[in-house]
Amino acid sequence: MMADELEFHRWLRARAEIGDGVDVSIGDDGAVCALPNGTRMVLVADAIAEGSHFLSDDPPELVGRKALARNLSDIAAMGAVPLYALATAALRRGCPDDVPRRITTGMLELAREFGVRLVGGDTVSHDGGTVLSVTVVGCIAPGAAILRSGARPGDVVVVSGRLGGSFPHRHLRFTPRVAEARTLLDLGPPSAMMDLSDGMALDLKRLCEASGVGADIDAASIPVHGDVDPGPETLRHALEDGEDYELLFTIAPEKWEIVKAAWPHEVPLTAVGRVTSGALRLVSGGGLGVPWPRGGHVHT
Amino acid sequence: MMADELEFHRWLRARAEIGDGVDVSIGDDGAVCALPNGTRMVLVADAIAEGSHFLSDDPPELVGRKALARNLSDIAAMGAVPLYALATAALRRGCPDDVPRRITTGMLELAREFGVRLVGGDTVSHDGGTVLSVTVVGCIAPGAAILRSGARPGDVVVVSGRLGGSFPHRHLRFTPRVAEARTLLDLGPPSAMMDLSDGMALDLKRLCEASGVGADIDAASIPVHGDVDPGPETLRHALEDGEDYELLFTIAPEKWEIVKAAWPHEVPLTAVGRVTSGALRLVSGGGLGVPWPRGGHVHT
Repeated sequence: MMADELEFHRWLRARAEIGDGVDVSIGDDGAVCALPNGTRMVLVADAIAEGSHFLSDDPPELVGRKALARNLSDIAAMGAVPLYALATAALRRGCPDDVPRRITTGMLELAREFGVRLVGGDTVSHDGGTVLSVTVVGCIAPGAAILRSGARPGDVVVVSGRLGGSFPHRHLRFTPRVAEARTLLDLGPPSAMMDLSDGMALDLKRLCEASGVGADIDAASIPVHGDVDPGPETLRHALEDGEDYELLFTIAPEKWEIVKAAWPHEVPLTAVGRVTSGALRLVSGGGLGVPWPRGGHVHT
Repeated sequence: MMADELEFHRWLRARAEIGDGVDVSIGDDGAVCALPNGTRMVLVADAIAEGSHFLSDDPPELVGRKALARNLSDIAAMGAVPLYALATAALRRGCPDDVPRRITTGMLELAREFGVRLVGGDTVSHDGGTVLSVTVVGCIAPGAAILRSGARPGDVVVVSGRLGGSFPHRHLRFTPRVAEARTLLDLGPPSAMMDLSDGMALDLKRLCEASGVGADIDAASIPVHGDVDPGPETLRHALEDGEDYELLFTIAPEKWEIVKAAWPHEVPLTAVGRVTSGALRLVSGGGLGVPWPRGGHVHT
C-alpha cells in the first residue's frame, strides 16, 4: 500500500477489462482467469518491503514465510486451492550471502505445509532494503470463486479468529486460512469473502462498497486478540491494527446455521453483525449506531 | 542477478522437485506446471531494479514496458503463448503521484500489443529505488515446451536479431520474440532454446551446460548490432553486453533448412556454429578454436 494507492487503484480498475477469459480482474483478492480450454486459475500477487511490512532485523526465514503467507491468504479469500508459487527478491547490495537461502527456506517450509510448489523466481541486488514479491497460482471450479461483491442485505457478517495486535510479532507467523475457506465453500458457500490485511475498519468498508451494501456491526461482538492490551483503545486496535489475515465473510442466515453446527476447525468463527441496505455503522450495546471508523492500517 | 546468484541458484535447483504436476521447475526460462485436469501452464517471474536494470531518470512508461517485456521474452524462450500478467511495484516513498500510472501505462501498451491481460498486482512504498516484479502465465501443449537441455551434437546454433550495445537505449524498447518463437515451434521445433539476457558468452554456456554438450562458434558469423561501435572490442560487446533479448536456439540441420526457407519474420536468424560433444569454443577464421570468453553481463 502506498500513499496514493486508493486513487491509483480507482484509475487501474477503470482499465481492467472483464470477459474474454477473465472472470475477475483487479479489485478483488485475486483474479480468476481461463486457459484456452476453459480451465480456471486464480492468480494473486503481493509484495512486501523492509521498513513497511517487516523490519531489517526480522529473521529472513520469517520474512520469506510472510511474503508467501500473504498470497496464500488471498488465495484462501477467493476460496481457491493454492498450487504454485513464484518469488522475486530485491536484496540490499552486499547483504550477507545466506540471506536469499534463508528467505527461500522460510518460503519452502510454508509451501510444503500447504502443498504448494515453488517453481520460479528471480533475485536482483539494489541500493535499498529487501523487497519480496510473490505470485501464487491456484485452481478453482468455474464460477466457484467467492468475491467481495456478493453480500446481500440480511446476510450475517462473520470473521475468523481474533483481531488486533498482530504487529510486531504475529504478522510474521500467521497461518493463512486456506483450509477454513475450503470448508466454508463446502458448507456454505459465503456470499462474499476477503482476507483482513488492512484492518476490519477499512476492509469491511471495501467489501460493502464492492457489494453496494452497508452493515450494522455489533461492537461488543468483535473478537479481540489476546495480543491487544485491554483498555479504552482495545476496539480501535481490533478494527484498525491490520495484518490479521483472518477471513471476513458474509453468508445467508440459514447457511450460517449449517456452518456453525458443522465447523470442524480450531479457529473460531464469530458473527459480528448483519448486512443492511443502509450505511456501514458500528452499533454498540443498546443499538445506537455510530459512523464506521475511518481507520485501518495503510502501509505508506 | 546478484553477486552470489550462481551459487544460490545451484542451492535452489537442488531443492526444485520435478513431477507431481511440475514438468519443468527452477533453472530454465520458465516453469511448466499442470492444473489438476492436466492442462499445462508456463509460469515466469522476473524483477528489475533501479540502478541495475534502468536509471532513475528513465521514463516510467519504458521501465514498466521493460519489466513486462523481459517476462514475455522468457515466455517466448519456452515456446509458450503469453496470456496473463501480474505486476508488483515497490516505489520510493514520496515519488511523484503519477509514477505508478505511468509505469502501468507502459505495461498496458505492451500487454495489448501481445494480447496479454494485466489482471493483478500490488504497490508498496519503501526507502529505496523502484523495483518492479512481473509474473506472466502462458499456455502450451503438454510436452511442447522448448527447454535449455535438448541440444544434441550436430545441431546448428542459431541466434535471432543482432547482438550487443543494448544498454543504454535499446534495452528499454526491445520487442520480445514471441511470434518468432511460435513460428520456430511450427517449423522446427528447435532442440533447445533460451532468451539472451546476460549476453551470449554466459547464456550459451548455460545452454551447453544444461544440455551436457559443447559448441564451436564461428566468431566471424556472430551478428553484431549497429549500436556497437566498430573496433577491436566489437565481438566482445556482441558476446558480453547482455540485454539482447534475442532467441538463442539449437536445431537439427535438416530442420534448420526448413526454417531458413520458410522464415516469414523481419528479424533475421543467423547460424553461428555447431553443437559438439566437446568444449564450448570460439573458432575464428581458419578453424583454430580458443576457449569461450568467460564474460557476460551479470547484474550485481
